[in-house]
Amino acid sequence: MGVTERVRFDEKGLVPVVAQDAEDGAVLMVAYADREAVERTLATGEAHYYSRSRGELWRKGQTSGNTQRVVEVRVDCDGDTLLYLVEPRGPACHTGERTCFFATLAGEGVGVSAGRGEDGVGLGAMLER
Amino acid sequence: MGVTERVRFDEKGLVPVVAQDAEDGAVLMVAYADREAVERTLATGEAHYYSRSRGELWRKGQTSGNTQRVVEVRVDCDGDTLLYLVEPRGPACHTGERTCFFATLAGEGVGVSAGRGEDGVGLGAMLER
Repeated sequence: MGVTERVRFDEKGLVPVVAQDAEDGAVLMVAYADREAVERTLATGEAHYYSRSRGELWRKGQTSGNTQRVVEVRVDCDGDTLLYLVEPRGPACHTGERTCFFATLAGEGVGVSAGRGEDGVGLGAMLER
Repeated sequence: MGVTERVRFDEKGLVPVVAQDAEDGAVLMVAYADREAVERTLATGEAHYYSRSRGELWRKGQTSGNTQRVVEVRVDCDGDTLLYLVEPRGPACHTGERTCFFATLAGEGVGVSAGRGEDGVGLGAMLER
């Protein structure tokens, strides 16, 4: 049985992947992988995903140069999500931000403790309940 | 416009959510949320998800007691994934592990730097390429 037999791909043959900075723990991005992407990641140590928009294997950084060296691949308890622990070479986000998660949603029960702030501040009162 | 208008729910009305320990950055779990779950999380500061197996709103810890206080909710650059920064009260995983990502997949290009190890060690050579 190959390693990827332990992964439960969904009806589209994909599994969500969280990419986390192995150094400081920042969550950088969430993308998707098919079996080939997982196998190539494990074989090469370079992060591979499946581009849902382009419908093809996607080696992170193949055009931008912002590759990710994968230190470890983890699978969750029920096998339907992966975690890549990576050493990023450049920003993960296509916007040039280090992480794709730079915007905060604010609500009455949740504050804005970090991040850009301006994205979320003041919207809490507009939350419909 | 409500805060959740910024979130792009998929064709099932769901969005994946990464729960991360706000204190030390550990990725605890990935689950899904519908609009109601996001709104309740923002309004109450307690992590809510949508249980795909039960088909209903799921307040984390409602039966186990292992709730999650949400410090911040972030949305990624294209609006289709959320990040809950949480203070967990007890393990996130139904197995009793602190995080659902306790198992490692090993390959020739990726080592085993942490985690349980035994789950992944030695399987690398069996990887089909």
